[in-house]
Amino acid sequence: MAGRAEADNVAMRGGYSLATIGAKHVIDGASELVMDALDAMELAKGKGAFLITDMGTADAGTSLDMMGTAMARVRKAAPGRGIFLIYTDQAGNDYNAIVANVLAESSPLPKIDELYVSMSPIGFYRQIVPAGELDFGFSATAMHWMNGKPCNIPDHVHMTGATGKAREMFTEQGRRDWETILLHRARELKPGGRLVFCNFGIDEEGRYLGNTGGISMFDTFAALWQRFVDEGTITAAEFEEMTLPQYYNTVDEFRAPLEDTSSPVHKAGLRLEHIETRVVKCPFREDFLKHGDAAKFAPAYVPTLRSWTESTFRGALVPGRGAEAAQAITDAYYQAYVDIVCESPEGHAMDYVHSYMTISKQ
Amino acid sequence: MAGRAEADNVAMRGGYSLATIGAKHVIDGASELVMDALDAMELAKGKGAFLITDMGTADAGTSLDMMGTAMARVRKAAPGRGIFLIYTDQAGNDYNAIVANVLAESSPLPKIDELYVSMSPIGFYRQIVPAGELDFGFSATAMHWMNGKPCNIPDHVHMTGATGKAREMFTEQGRRDWETILLHRARELKPGGRLVFCNFGIDEEGRYLGNTGGISMFDTFAALWQRFVDEGTITAAEFEEMTLPQYYNTVDEFRAPLEDTSSPVHKAGLRLEHIETRVVKCPFREDFLKHGDAAKFAPAYVPTLRSWTESTFRGALVPGRGAEAAQAITDAYYQAYVDIVCESPEGHAMDYVHSYMTISKQ
Repeated sequence: MAGRAEADNVAMRGGYSLATIGAKHVIDGASELVMDALDAMELAKGKGAFLITDMGTADAGTSLDMMGTAMARVRKAAPGRGIFLIYTDQAGNDYNAIVANVLAESSPLPKIDELYVSMSPIGFYRQIVPAGELDFGFSATAMHWMNGKPCNIPDHVHMTGATGKAREMFTEQGRRDWETILLHRARELKPGGRLVFCNFGIDEEGRYLGNTGGISMFDTFAALWQRFVDEGTITAAEFEEMTLPQYYNTVDEFRAPLEDTSSPVHKAGLRLEHIETRVVKCPFREDFLKHGDAAKFAPAYVPTLRSWTESTFRGALVPGRGAEAAQAITDAYYQAYVDIVCESPEGHAMDYVHSYMTISKQ
Repeated sequence: MAGRAEADNVAMRGGYSLATIGAKHVIDGASELVMDALDAMELAKGKGAFLITDMGTADAGTSLDMMGTAMARVRKAAPGRGIFLIYTDQAGNDYNAIVANVLAESSPLPKIDELYVSMSPIGFYRQIVPAGELDFGFSATAMHWMNGKPCNIPDHVHMTGATGKAREMFTEQGRRDWETILLHRARELKPGGRLVFCNFGIDEEGRYLGNTGGISMFDTFAALWQRFVDEGTITAAEFEEMTLPQYYNTVDEFRAPLEDTSSPVHKAGLRLEHIETRVVKCPFREDFLKHGDAAKFAPAYVPTLRSWTESTFRGALVPGRGAEAAQAITDAYYQAYVDIVCESPEGHAMDYVHSYMTISKQ
């Protein structure tokens, strides 16, 4: 899942850099919610192994510290129960990278008694474990990736800039995707089980990733891509095809299926215990505020945007162009973004905006 | 695990070739034992999910058909229970290859309701799942790989050719490794659970892999490697370092910890329900018997031997030689084996010799 994969490429090289620290901050910031949820579960009274999933984990690197702390809590609270931790992501994920991280010398997991790690290639749009076996589910910065793209957005690259029919179609599928995620979790969870999610979304003030009061990152993406059409570099069809398969729920949209008593999610027993939005500052922007050098900021900042958008931009170009020409267009595109930031760095920042939720199963 | 990895490199390219069909025959031949073991377990009476492990699975390709049949049996016998299938191998295995195989269009697993697949990087020398959670464990052609190398064999490359102190050390560690494997499984298994293993071993007539009445494959390996010493291509130290970390148990050795009432394995409740040895014919040899062309047989046959021995031969050469020189020596070594088979093909065959076992937990 790109939000975390971006960070994880770096985590694999050992240690945390600017590119990974933002995603890690989001998860570390969820630690208290996770601990509270675990404490509420009366772990010692549970029977059999304690089963936990980390959904959309990428290479498991950014959640490793939080997960070590959480698993140590379970270990202490329920000394008699084995712990079964399952990392899951989509089928195309790199599972060998998860193994390298969770078994690394620096990993906290091998030091926890009776903790058993496993990996599932199922992702969160299907059921991951047998019904009624799950104690706790965690996910961070992953569930904004939709279960396929509902349509192309004719005049933007992201649903936050979509209007009319396209916006309606994204909203409708966003609703169904969130319901699908929750219904599978409802089936997996034991009664009394908990979920803690940190999901990209739109907060009460209308803020979202890369749009927290300064320049909108997604508007910049779209304007630059439109410039490439105007200059004849790409076609109008290629502009349209570049549509990120992402949906950012508002707080009300996250709440709806959990609070509407007629929803199948509510009927399945899921209840929202807590929801809050948080902004985690862009570490590149923070760094720039210290050094003030735009020529240093711009080429450091743009690759983190590139890491989770490039495959969609590349995929929008018609195959007939050939790999070399497509690469040249893509390179020019991100270079143009660097140039914009370099010339006028004010307001550029990829601040993270998440809804943090705790959900229980009755 | 090399015995199956050899096959699986080919399985990944789609379909079964000669290189994979032998390993697949071994597992398909275990199907009846697996079905009998499942039938003996009164599956419908069990509670919670049915948990099964495939240990030392490599890319899961060679067991896929058998596993599909077995899981369909569980599905039918216990319609109310979810099935949780966990593939495991050592940390360095390619887990992405497992995902590709189990989720492939041709895989039987996605067609089985309420079957959930996962992967563990733990291998069989440690506990894979929490205590008391396992219903059924399977392993084929994997447990001959030792938990490290006890010593170098001064005058051979494999324990079947070792004598004196080296043989004693291999035998002692082989005993401990088998006990370790079984004790972890005893802890994992529910009472009434079963294990079915097809392990490389030495049969009642003294036969083992590549030594079933014709020319001994391991003696050929050793004699050729000695020739490289005599010709000055490698050093005596490099000869010694080439020691395969494998142990082939005799039938009595497989039996011992399961039948000796003073053994911790017996005390932990594991009981041997069935053991038999089988020889599965070398598919390359079978093919040669049809076409009779040694020049075709030799270069087809030797790569299958190379696939699971090359890393150990390469690893025995001192790093100071450099990668290119080491590659040249390795290439020359397997070419020499091809030349031998080509000149005198009679008796060359990598027939598989396994002990097939069913073990229960009281």
